[in-house]
Amino acid sequence: MKETDLSSFPKTLNAGAGKVKLLLWYFANALVLNSYFLPISIVKCWLLRLFGARIGNSVVIKPRVNIKFPWKLSIGDNTWIGEGVWIDNLDQVTIGKNCCLSQGSIIITGNHNYKKTTFDLITKPIVLEDGVWLGAGSMVCPGVIAQNHALLTMGSVATHGMLAYTVYKGNPAVEYKKRIIE
Amino acid sequence: MKETDLSSFPKTLNAGAGKVKLLLWYFANALVLNSYFLPISIVKCWLLRLFGARIGNSVVIKPRVNIKFPWKLSIGDNTWIGEGVWIDNLDQVTIGKNCCLSQGSIIITGNHNYKKTTFDLITKPIVLEDGVWLGAGSMVCPGVIAQNHALLTMGSVATHGMLAYTVYKGNPAVEYKKRIIE
Amino acid sequence: MKETDLSSFPKTLNAGAGKVKLLLWYFANALVLNSYFLPISIVKCWLLRLFGARIGNSVVIKPRVNIKFPWKLSIGDNTWIGEGVWIDNLDQVTIGKNCCLSQGSIIITGNHNYKKTTFDLITKPIVLEDGVWLGAGSMVCPGVIAQNHALLTMGSVATHGMLAYTVYKGNPAVEYKKRIIE
Repeated sequence: MKETDLSSFPKTLNAGAGKVKLLLWYFANALVLNSYFLPISIVKCWLLRLFGARIGNSVVIKPRVNIKFPWKLSIGDNTWIGEGVWIDNLDQVTIGKNCCLSQGSIIITGNHNYKKTTFDLITKPIVLEDGVWLGAGSMVCPGVIAQNHALLTMGSVATHGMLAYTVYKGNPAVEYKKRIIE
Repeated sequence: MKETDLSSFPKTLNAGAGKVKLLLWYFANALVLNSYFLPISIVKCWLLRLFGARIGNSVVIKPRVNIKFPWKLSIGDNTWIGEGVWIDNLDQVTIGKNCCLSQGSIIITGNHNYKKTTFDLITKPIVLEDGVWLGAGSMVCPGVIAQNHALLTMGSVATHGMLAYTVYKGNPAVEYKKRIIE
Repeated sequence: MKETDLSSFPKTLNAGAGKVKLLLWYFANALVLNSYFLPISIVKCWLLRLFGARIGNSVVIKPRVNIKFPWKLSIGDNTWIGEGVWIDNLDQVTIGKNCCLSQGSIIITGNHNYKKTTFDLITKPIVLEDGVWLGAGSMVCPGVIAQNHALLTMGSVATHGMLAYTVYKGNPAVEYKKRIIE
């Protein structure tokens, strides 16, 4: 069998920003977002916008949030980003209005081609449409589109797309029941 | 279908403390508990008691523990709270004697009524009776009562009550075998 | 039924280092490894070697990595340790060449004898052979040997050994398909 050789890994990632901006964001994220010590959403939203994120009105951002590239992030009005949420957006992450990303949930956009010795990076965008709820400690895999008001329960892992108004549960997450809003 | 509107979310949470106490605990938790830099259980137990927690004798609290409201927390004698444990106790969390919450385990008491456009908060207390063991990286959902010496294996997610002297495994966790103590 | 009594827990762990070294590493890990503020792999590799780790060439160590005992760690050439990886190596952890431990993955070597009232510690070494990939947020349980180029998908929990060139998925992880490298 052939073997992976990570020394041959091709650096194909388009970070979408120059080195200075990357470095500034790295420390801004560390000091302001992924921290306890500036617990004011409005400041964090302002900072994210300054670095190119599209952030709607009344977005709530709790402490210890980790965001890779603000310029690849869009968040709609009234959405909540819970404590300890990790948005690893090497690729575009688009979050709709009135979404709730509960505490400790993780969004991952990066994958690797494990069938190649060079282990090439593959990134895929993630979309959470309006009203989606990611339960505490849940995870969303690269390329997932969670349709309108889809719901991923606590600790579940979404490996595939999620249908609108549907509750997903388990690891890997499977359809559990419909979400009916009265 | 109707849509959630988080701008209409009713702030019904009874935090159980005034604003000054909440703010003081917020920073005490950040600086002393969820930190590496004061790795002495006795100080952390004293601090938790100062803020209203009921903490038994010989309780061990490892670094980087995150506790929401000490005044809604009770821990029995000899219990261990492992590194990186997150007790998100919007509601009462009652932990018995001789329990072990292993590293990275998470206890969540808050849920939302996802059938309402207002996404109302629902909190439910959690009880871990004497001798319960939560494995590393496991999660306990709101309302769970883990009876005497129940055991949740590493990385498992307890969505329902756990019977006494029984081992639960998987996500969602299911009964795996009996725990017989010789 | 008998009950656990953690006050009778026998401290059998051989940490493999004296108190001064343990304390120095504790703070070095906190300040340099499990931090954002020294994001230079070469410094971290040097520090790990200084404390007794065997680290190959061109090893990449991302921010916020948590390592228990460097003197019980061996990492081969070109291996990547992702952001937020937690190697809780109470026992020896041996990682081969060209491995990728993705962000947030967790390696746990410690277990307890839950059939004894004294809850004795049981540690087991973990081996990740060359080319193994642990997906983001995945977990590896004590005693697991992941053979050559085994792959654990995102969020999965490996409770048993993993065969060479095989993809494992789910919690608990089960064989999913073969990993064929072209």
